[in-house]
Parts: sequence; C-alpha cells; structure tokens
Amino acid sequence: MAKRSKKVSESYVTMTELVLPNDTNTLNNLMGGKLMQWMDIVSAIAAQKHSNRIVVTASVDNVSFEKPIQLGNVVTLRAKVTRAFSSSMEVRIEVTGEDIPNGKKFDSNTAYFTFVAVDQSGRPIDVPEAIPETPEEKEFFAGALRRRQLRLVLAGRMKPDEATELKSIFNLDVK
Amino acid sequence: MAKRSKKVSESYVTMTELVLPNDTNTLNNLMGGKLMQWMDIVSAIAAQKHSNRIVVTASVDNVSFEKPIQLGNVVTLRAKVTRAFSSSMEVRIEVTGEDIPNGKKFDSNTAYFTFVAVDQSGRPIDVPEAIPETPEEKEFFAGALRRRQLRLVLAGRMKPDEATELKSIFNLDVK
Amino acid sequence: MAKRSKKVSESYVTMTELVLPNDTNTLNNLMGGKLMQWMDIVSAIAAQKHSNRIVVTASVDNVSFEKPIQLGNVVTLRAKVTRAFSSSMEVRIEVTGEDIPNGKKFDSNTAYFTFVAVDQSGRPIDVPEAIPETPEEKEFFAGALRRRQLRLVLAGRMKPDEATELKSIFNLDVK
Amino acid sequence: MAKRSKKVSESYVTMTELVLPNDTNTLNNLMGGKLMQWMDIVSAIAAQKHSNRIVVTASVDNVSFEKPIQLGNVVTLRAKVTRAFSSSMEVRIEVTGEDIPNGKKFDSNTAYFTFVAVDQSGRPIDVPEAIPETPEEKEFFAGALRRRQLRLVLAGRMKPDEATELKSIFNLDVK
Amino acid sequence: MAKRSKKVSESYVTMTELVLPNDTNTLNNLMGGKLMQWMDIVSAIAAQKHSNRIVVTASVDNVSFEKPIQLGNVVTLRAKVTRAFSSSMEVRIEVTGEDIPNGKKFDSNTAYFTFVAVDQSGRPIDVPEAIPETPEEKEFFAGALRRRQLRLVLAGRMKPDEATELKSIFNLDVK
Amino acid sequence: MAKRSKKVSESYVTMTELVLPNDTNTLNNLMGGKLMQWMDIVSAIAAQKHSNRIVVTASVDNVSFEKPIQLGNVVTLRAKVTRAFSSSMEVRIEVTGEDIPNGKKFDSNTAYFTFVAVDQSGRPIDVPEAIPETPEEKEFFAGALRRRQLRLVLAGRMKPDEATELKSIFNLDVK
Repeated sequence: MAKRSKKVSESYVTMTELVLPNDTNTLNNLMGGKLMQWMDIVSAIAAQKHSNRIVVTASVDNVSFEKPIQLGNVVTLRAKVTRAFSSSMEVRIEVTGEDIPNGKKFDSNTAYFTFVAVDQSGRPIDVPEAIPETPEEKEFFAGALRRRQLRLVLAGRMKPDEATELKSIFNLDVK
Repeated sequence: MAKRSKKVSESYVTMTELVLPNDTNTLNNLMGGKLMQWMDIVSAIAAQKHSNRIVVTASVDNVSFEKPIQLGNVVTLRAKVTRAFSSSMEVRIEVTGEDIPNGKKFDSNTAYFTFVAVDQSGRPIDVPEAIPETPEEKEFFAGALRRRQLRLVLAGRMKPDEATELKSIFNLDVK
Repeated sequence: MAKRSKKVSESYVTMTELVLPNDTNTLNNLMGGKLMQWMDIVSAIAAQKHSNRIVVTASVDNVSFEKPIQLGNVVTLRAKVTRAFSSSMEVRIEVTGEDIPNGKKFDSNTAYFTFVAVDQSGRPIDVPEAIPETPEEKEFFAGALRRRQLRLVLAGRMKPDEATELKSIFNLDVK
Repeated sequence: MAKRSKKVSESYVTMTELVLPNDTNTLNNLMGGKLMQWMDIVSAIAAQKHSNRIVVTASVDNVSFEKPIQLGNVVTLRAKVTRAFSSSMEVRIEVTGEDIPNGKKFDSNTAYFTFVAVDQSGRPIDVPEAIPETPEEKEFFAGALRRRQLRLVLAGRMKPDEATELKSIFNLDVK
Repeated sequence: MAKRSKKVSESYVTMTELVLPNDTNTLNNLMGGKLMQWMDIVSAIAAQKHSNRIVVTASVDNVSFEKPIQLGNVVTLRAKVTRAFSSSMEVRIEVTGEDIPNGKKFDSNTAYFTFVAVDQSGRPIDVPEAIPETPEEKEFFAGALRRRQLRLVLAGRMKPDEATELKSIFNLDVK
Repeated sequence: MAKRSKKVSESYVTMTELVLPNDTNTLNNLMGGKLMQWMDIVSAIAAQKHSNRIVVTASVDNVSFEKPIQLGNVVTLRAKVTRAFSSSMEVRIEVTGEDIPNGKKFDSNTAYFTFVAVDQSGRPIDVPEAIPETPEEKEFFAGALRRRQLRLVLAGRMKPDEATELKSIFNLDVK
C-alpha cells in the first residue's frame, strides 16, 4: 500500500544548467520560455518524488523575471513540494543565476507550479499528504491554500466570495 | 521618429508547431514547459512587431493546462498585444491543439505574457500606444489594467488598497 | 465516409520561427537545410489538413535561396495545398523574413513539396480533390500539372514526349 | 595565391547519422526535412573543401524520396563537387539507408545542391575549377551544365530557347 | 588577488536530468554518449566553481556503464573537485538513476574528468589548491595522484618507472 | 546462421560533423562532452556493423583532449572494431578537426569504446570474431588484450597479478 504521508524534504530536487547559445535572445540573455521549461522539468521531478506517480503540469502561477541571466551563466533550480491536495501538488521553485568566472551569484526568481498525479491511463489518483517540518516549510504550506484559491478564482472555478483565505492578500476586512 | 501609436491588429502572429517525441512526457503528452517555451517565442514576436524593438520577458500570468496535447498533434499559437504601458506590453496567447488524422480540434489554453522593450544595452525604452479596434480587442484592452494590478500586487509592488481595478475581480464593494 | 473534395483554403497554415544561433552558419545566416526542415513541417501540416491522413514527403521541387535570413530574424512560412492527384498533394510554401527591430520585411523564397497520404501501415490512400476558388489558387492549380510532369520526367517516370503540359515552359512548338 | 583548379576527389565527404526519435514522423520514419538538413550540411562541407571558403546554399534541385528510412537506421550521405562555375559549385549527394541488425542496405536518394563561395562580408568570390578524373566524375561534370540550365530556366533567369544543353533532356530535335 | 586555496566542498554541484526520447537507443536506454555529455557539463561547473575561471576538458578517465538507465528515468549527477595540480583540476562525478514511479534508485557509475583553467585567450592559468576535509574527500584527494600518473603514462608523458604511486594499484613490490 | 568471423574492415565508419554554436563553450571551442557523444554514436555504428546486433556502450577508455576544435570547424570521426571478445567489441575512434577556410587540418584525439551486443530483451549475445588484415589492424588487435586487462583491473574485476599482458605497459620484469 502507498504511503499516507511524506515529509516535504523527501521531494527536494536540485537541477543545474549551463546557459548555451540556443537558450539566449539577441542580447545574449536566457529566454524566459527556456527557463520555464527547466522549471517545469525540475518541479515535475519533485512532484514525482512526492507521489511516486507519473505527473502532469496542471498550472503555473504568475512568474516574474527580474534580472537577466546571461550566456555562459550557471542556473540552479531548487524545487520542493509545499503541499498536496488529494491528487494535486503545489511545487515551489527557486532559481539562482551565477556568473562563476566573475564571482557573481544572484537570485533570479521564484515560482509555483501545480501538478496532478495520474495513473497509466491519465486519470487523477490520490497522493500522500505533504508534511512540512521546518518553519519555512510550514510557511509555504500555509500559503499554499491562499495561492490555490487565487488559481481557482482566476480559472473561474471558485466564487471570489468563497475565497476566504485569499482575501487576506488584499488586507480586506471581511465582515 | 518612432510611431506614437499602432493598431493592435498589426501585432498579430500565428505559430504552428508539430509535437515531436522529445516534447512529450511518458504519457506521450506535450510537456507544459515546452508549451510555455513556444508561448514565450510567439508572444515575444508579437511584442517585437508592436514595438520594433528587442523585447525581454518581464512576467507570465497564471496559466492552466486543461486538455492534454498529444504526440503528433499540431499546436497553433495566436498572439497579439492587448495593451502597452510606457515600455511594457501585455500579450495574449491563445493555444489550440489539433489531432488532424482524427479530425479533432480543441482549445488548449490562454495566457498573458508581459514584455519590456529595451535598447541595445538592455535599458527600457518607450513603445507606441496600442489601439484596439474590434469589440474583443477593446475588452482585452480594458482587462489589461486589472491584470496589471494583480501582477503588481503579487510582486509586492502595489498595495492591495490601491488596486482599484483589481477589486472588481472579487466583486468587492469599494466604499 | 471521407469527403470527396475540399477547398484549397481549408489547408492554409502559417508557421513562424525565430532564427536561433544553432540555425545559422558562420556568417550568422540561417542555413538552407534548416529552412527546408521548417518548410517540410509546415507543408506536411497543410497536406494533413487537406487529407486528414498521415502524410509522407514524396518530393521537393527546385528551391533557390536568394536573400540571406539572419540570426534573430523572424521567418514566416505560409503553406497551402495547390492540387491533389489520387493519393498525392502538391503544397506551395511562401517564405518571408523579417528583421523587426530594423523594420525590414522581405520575400525569401517559394517552394513546392509533394506529399503522399498513407494509412497506418504506410500504404498510399486516396485524398479529396482540392477545389481552388480565388484567381491565384486557380493559377497554382493549373500550374500543378506542369510541375508534376517535370517531376515525373526528372525522376525518369515519364517520357519527355508525353509531357505535353511541360513543353509549354519551354515555349516549344509541338507539332 | 589560391589554386586555379582542384580534383573532384579532393572534395569527397562521408557523413553518417543515426535516426533518433525526434527525426521521425508518426510512422517512425525519418522526416524528409531532416534528411534535407543533413544533405545541406554534408554538401556544404564538400563545397568548403573544394573552395576553402565560407559557402552559402544557393539552390536545391528536385529531390524525391522513394523508400522510407526508419527509426534506428543508419544513414550514410556521400557528397562531392561535380563542377564549379566562377563562384558557384554543384554538389552531388548520394544517400543510403541501412537497417544493420536486419542486414538491409538500400539506396535512398540522390540530390544536387548548389553553393556560392563568399568572403567574410558575404560577397561572391571565385573558386577553383573542378577537375573530374574517373568516367563517373566526367559524366556528372558533363551533366552539370544541363542541370544548371534547368535551374536558370526555372528561376526565370534564362530563356528556354537559350537552354541548348537542357533540350537534350527532352530529346528535342533542335534545328 | 585570487584565493590560494579553497575547500573541496565549495565545488559541489548537483545536476538532475530527465531521460527524454532523443537521449535513448532502440532499447529505450540512455545512450552512453549522452550521459558523458551531461558528466562533462556538471564537472565543468564544479571546476569553474573551484577556480572561478573558464575551464576546458583535458581528459576523461576510464568509465564503465553497468546498469541501463531507461526512458523517463531521472538521472542525478553529483560532481566535486578532488584535487588541483597547478592549472588542472580532477573532478569526481557520481551518477545515480531513479525510476521514481516504481520506487527504484540505483548507482549508475562513477567517473573522473580533468579540466584546465584558462584565461580569455585560452592559456592555462593557476588555480587554488583544493583542501579536502572529510575522510572521504581525503581519500579521493590521495587517490588523485595515482590516477594522474596513470593518465600521464597512458598519454605517453610519463615513464612507467617514474609512476611510483601508480604501481600501488598493481600491488607491485618496487625494490 | 550468423557469421563466425568478419574482417575488421567491414566495420569501418566515417562520420562528419560541423561544430555549431550550441556545441561550444564560452571560448567558442567544441565541448569535450559533445565530442564524446559523437564518438559514442560513430563507434556504436561500427560495433553494429560488425555484429549486426543492437549494441550498448559498456565502457570508454581514458580520452585526452589536446587541441581545441573551434566553432565552424569540421570534425571527422573514423571508427573501426579492433577485436571481439565473445559478446563484446572494442572500437577505436580517430578524430581529426579541420578549419577548412584556413586550410588547417589537425589530429584531435584517439579513443577506445567497448560495446556489448544484446538481443531484443537486452541480454548479451555472441558476436563474430574480428579478423585483422593490415599490419595496423593487427597491431590494434594485439593491443586490445592489454587494454582489456587495464579495464578489468580498473573496474576491480581482475587481480593485477593476473594481468600478464598489461604489465608490459609498465615495462615490468615479471619473474
């Protein structure tokens, strides 16, 4: 029988990529779409490790790209499951860039991808609960509920009035 | 001198891709990250056509993946600038999948990517206003303001109280 | 039952590609072979749309490359079936290049690819007739016969004496 | 000073490729466009060897694809310059396929690509004459004139009446 | 001024890759050459981290491939500098494979790659000493001398008689 | 029935590759790992030709990289089986680089890869003996025994004392 719960830390994955010419635009900067492709792979692996299932990407939350990552830079992507909801899992990915010969290391961005575990015929299947242990893991676990409501509201599958957790983002006085 | 404004329709781009083996996961479905890479390219081209500038991806809004697209399917991506804000442009991308031998065509998803126009040294530079003409273009133009506020609030660069447009998503009574 | 005929316009496909570093030669120009690979994919999709079948490339007509397309340029390929012959279809592809930041758009080249529709075991299978509607479509439809004879003569499968249509290319007085 | 003439045999190149999943269509057969990309590379190398110059693809003659080449097959491409004309060179490519575990080897197709030698700024530059030695090389050398006239007529750059060599293809009595 | 020495642990790199269709042979197993390409990238990054320099691959020691890694498996590569010798660094790479849905994890192989740090014009340049701290790091540090002698003897750059360390591999009584 | 022996010359394979941007590091030199990937493919084809079987990479001997190969260079890889041992084959690969426009041709390196022939379920299966004919082929055939012992000793599968052939590398007086 499959496990009922797993520690968040069991899903940790680190992926390292070297920015090659074909990954870059005319300014020799990593293209956003290529970075998202790497994020998708690393977070799918984290979700697989948590669920021991085939997983499919269900959604990607708002991602913003602040600092350009350049040709020849090393990109490190760290992914971990933050919380599981029946057959779906939210994964947080943190990306850092590094220009090693010049000794520069910088945060690039953070993103949340959601995956659904499926069986061989592609039907959703339940996954273990994710157990956070460190204060940071607990914070991401708590925030997952709010982010999930935002996803459901944006996808038109939850009425804004019901998104009680989400309202806290907007500091709204809910009477 | 550069143009002061351009019609939204001048930025229209259509891109067609065939799903090849390396684009798929173990279920033979197109991986979400690969689709996002195509979305990034087609929307960057739309932003380039509007601005006649080099553009860099600034952010990607929430994207959800409903229907699997399979190996051998044809993917059509249609992109257009919805609105411009000084140096940034919001681009809407609509993706459809098609299993041609079986005569099946389906909507896959819709996404909004934001780009910033930059000069050769990577500094932001103003772009023409985007002029919507059809009722649909006008609707996307109007919604762009709301989506922009959500992006700013999520990135911590706007206080939720100031996001007057955004509140309409949540049907909130703003007194 | 499959359709007996389809309009040429039902097969229209547009594909847009960005020239990336690996697509270029030492002069930073798009390599001819890479362009032909894109032409093959876009025209195969047009032939699939006409026939609703798996299609295989049967032949490529003489293609010439006039203007270099450069790194960072956007390449637009437009394909349409011009005429069908039992199980084969001729597809016309028009390629334009665009240096968007410099506002330059130019015709690159035109080519004809021929495809055969096949069943799952790879055996040729009949396709609908292609019905041209506009004057331009009618002109390409008419010319298809001549181009087909040239293909058959060059492949040694038709005697030049029988290529009555073809002779018109050479303005020959056939007595 | 550059050489005035070079033997055809000095331009011989052999290229071997293994058909990988991404090179194939839904029938697991090598896509025509991928094969043309390999043909372009091998023939460009032959033209480079003859001219010791950067070369750009000028045209591709009619190519037909008879036998499917399958996933896992080994493809051998042999290229050689057949004849040089001031700054351009015609290259003949012969392609064979091989299913090694099943001991099957077969001719796939033959094609002619034409290249122009250019200097660093992309301007055409003269190349050495190509000297054929074997009877086969002499035959390809002789035929190059006829094929060149066909290319010029098809490109609208030679009047059919002037294509004296070409007429021999059509067994025409030229009085 | 550059550092005189760095801890071995500062060079640790982890890279995670998903085996995609194009990485596999006809048995759906990861091809050895593809794995070596990943090993080269991860170990180059470790050498870069140690030296803060551009690095070039100087040699690869004997590698053997025991267990097949399959399509869809996750490959984890862990690299670290074991020892530095003036401008060169030996990097040890440990590879594990994982079939996550089936809960199987296995050691794949171990390899040593050697890199040379170079300046912008490609000339060798000195790197910091590598300081091992853990017992394991000290063991790899010690063995590096023996492996280096084997490399030099095999490359014909050291006489076997002088390879005093190496002889210990063969349990030879050196009188 | 399968052949009992085959000439070494029947396994000869030549592969030619053009160094493209994505194959290079920040110095515009071919990355070692990419070269090893090509070596793996060309030597696998040689082993396939000898055995008429599916083959899997078993090991790679020490490879050193002396001269940088640059962007735009042509790389020629020549592979041949040197000797067969029940189900395994040693393949020798010789790599040359060529900067054609500058008329420079140079030896890059030499390597030995070992392959095992397998049946459809991946089990080792015997291959024909390899018969060397030329003096050079005979020399490589003789040396194969010594290299095989080194591989076995390094993999911990042969005691150094038993490696009688190998000792000759070290000019050891074996009493």
